[in-house]
Amino acid sequence: MREIAYYDGNIGSPDELTVPFNDRAHFFGDGVYDAAMGANGRIFCLEDHLDRFYSSAAAFGIHVPMQKDELGALLLDLLSKVEGRSQFVYWQVSRGANGRLHIYDPNMAGKLWVFIGPEDLPDPAVPLKLITLEDRRFEYGNVKTLNLMPAVKYTQEAALAGVDEAVLHRDGIVTECAHSNVSILKGGILYSHPNDEHILRGIAKTHLIQACYRESVPVIERAFTLEQLADADEVIITSSSNLCTFAGELDGKPIGGRDPKTLRTLRESVYRKYRDYMGVEPAFA
Amino acid sequence: MREIAYYDGNIGSPDELTVPFNDRAHFFGDGVYDAAMGANGRIFCLEDHLDRFYSSAAAFGIHVPMQKDELGALLLDLLSKVEGRSQFVYWQVSRGANGRLHIYDPNMAGKLWVFIGPEDLPDPAVPLKLITLEDRRFEYGNVKTLNLMPAVKYTQEAALAGVDEAVLHRDGIVTECAHSNVSILKGGILYSHPNDEHILRGIAKTHLIQACYRESVPVIERAFTLEQLADADEVIITSSSNLCTFAGELDGKPIGGRDPKTLRTLRESVYRKYRDYMGVEPAFA
Repeated sequence: MREIAYYDGNIGSPDELTVPFNDRAHFFGDGVYDAAMGANGRIFCLEDHLDRFYSSAAAFGIHVPMQKDELGALLLDLLSKVEGRSQFVYWQVSRGANGRLHIYDPNMAGKLWVFIGPEDLPDPAVPLKLITLEDRRFEYGNVKTLNLMPAVKYTQEAALAGVDEAVLHRDGIVTECAHSNVSILKGGILYSHPNDEHILRGIAKTHLIQACYRESVPVIERAFTLEQLADADEVIITSSSNLCTFAGELDGKPIGGRDPKTLRTLRESVYRKYRDYMGVEPAFA
Repeated sequence: MREIAYYDGNIGSPDELTVPFNDRAHFFGDGVYDAAMGANGRIFCLEDHLDRFYSSAAAFGIHVPMQKDELGALLLDLLSKVEGRSQFVYWQVSRGANGRLHIYDPNMAGKLWVFIGPEDLPDPAVPLKLITLEDRRFEYGNVKTLNLMPAVKYTQEAALAGVDEAVLHRDGIVTECAHSNVSILKGGILYSHPNDEHILRGIAKTHLIQACYRESVPVIERAFTLEQLADADEVIITSSSNLCTFAGELDGKPIGGRDPKTLRTLRESVYRKYRDYMGVEPAFA
């Protein structure tokens, strides 16, 4: 198959599969998700994504209807049915399918959803363009919930502005991007927002930080301002589906480009990890 | 039928109807909703709810797939198929069914969903119990979106605490409740949070304010603190499915009860409007 969809034991094409009207995802966005890149029959850092997924579910008292190893095996089995050289592997759990009632049985079993379709990584040598937008999201940003209307809105605003991603800020303090994390290099040090309730703990950001430790680049997890972002030596954008890219433009003005050596060293270290884990060269779009 | 569900032209029982896997409500909670009480073949203040619904959709660039009068006629037609003395009439529009892509075609036609089932108003003579919780929601609270995980969380916490509703505050300033508005009477004046981005412009709250004008009770739309709430003469809770109730307990301590005459006058004025509009006495649970 080119794409596959799964809901609570049923498998089909995403265009044809249907799901119960009464699922709570429909009325409340009452669920959490995770996603990772697939290739060569493997899912990049699957165990980290599963850990984060079960943590997200626990944060809102949602029960994933199977054990972690069973879910991992299911995802790999579904991935094996999908063609192509690399894939976007997405899964979510909704709290259940009992209709539109705020109050729920705390023991309710969740409903598992999976989508897998073709996707390549973007070419990490191509700089991204960014715009800045105000971060008006809720204070549960450390949980990967399905309450994503602001992320949709900010991504669409970036696209309409002809750029790749929106950098968000709260009163001038940079948090993260609409669907990725942002870190900066300044004076040979990597700065990144601490993992509090305003940002998602990005697994690709963790790869970047691990690469810093491997390459002896100091890391300070401290929030930075819009001014510090504009004045950074390099601006690094990470996400599970983009891995490790960099930005060259912010609100129409050039940024970064002042420490290409460190940037290249870190990027190569991250992609080496991908290559080693997946047993295949990354496929770029 | 006892309950009815509608999705994009298909009608069925909510337990049996299915919807496309690819609807954007599933992945992003990408939609808006409204709800009102039904009885005697009528929907209370339907035109106000339709106006708010189309305003919510417009705020996020979502297209309701029919005109306002067509939607009103559809809701009344579906209501006519449902038995019982009074009903909860709920409808939502999702942005569309194109799968999990943040970016969307701005002209995409939305998908309409409806649910109607039996529901009575609560007895307005019974005082509610409240708890206070921190308001950690996003700053799009003036739009009735499907991004409701915080509302689910706060409602569940209230239920687990054995109370009826959670009053939310930002740094000690009361905003609204998990799924209703809160206003107070103090010294013969009604105080209520202004309709900014931190609260939903409640249609039942508007009924209450209109009742104040009818009964010459001054209204000041100004936010109040948790201390002012605890010290109020009366605490009034309004929502479309609860209409106009009052609170008698906050975090385990008694509140209100010091201006029962004004409370009763306002409540009777609101229920008179309901009776006149619906052509039937309100049915209490």
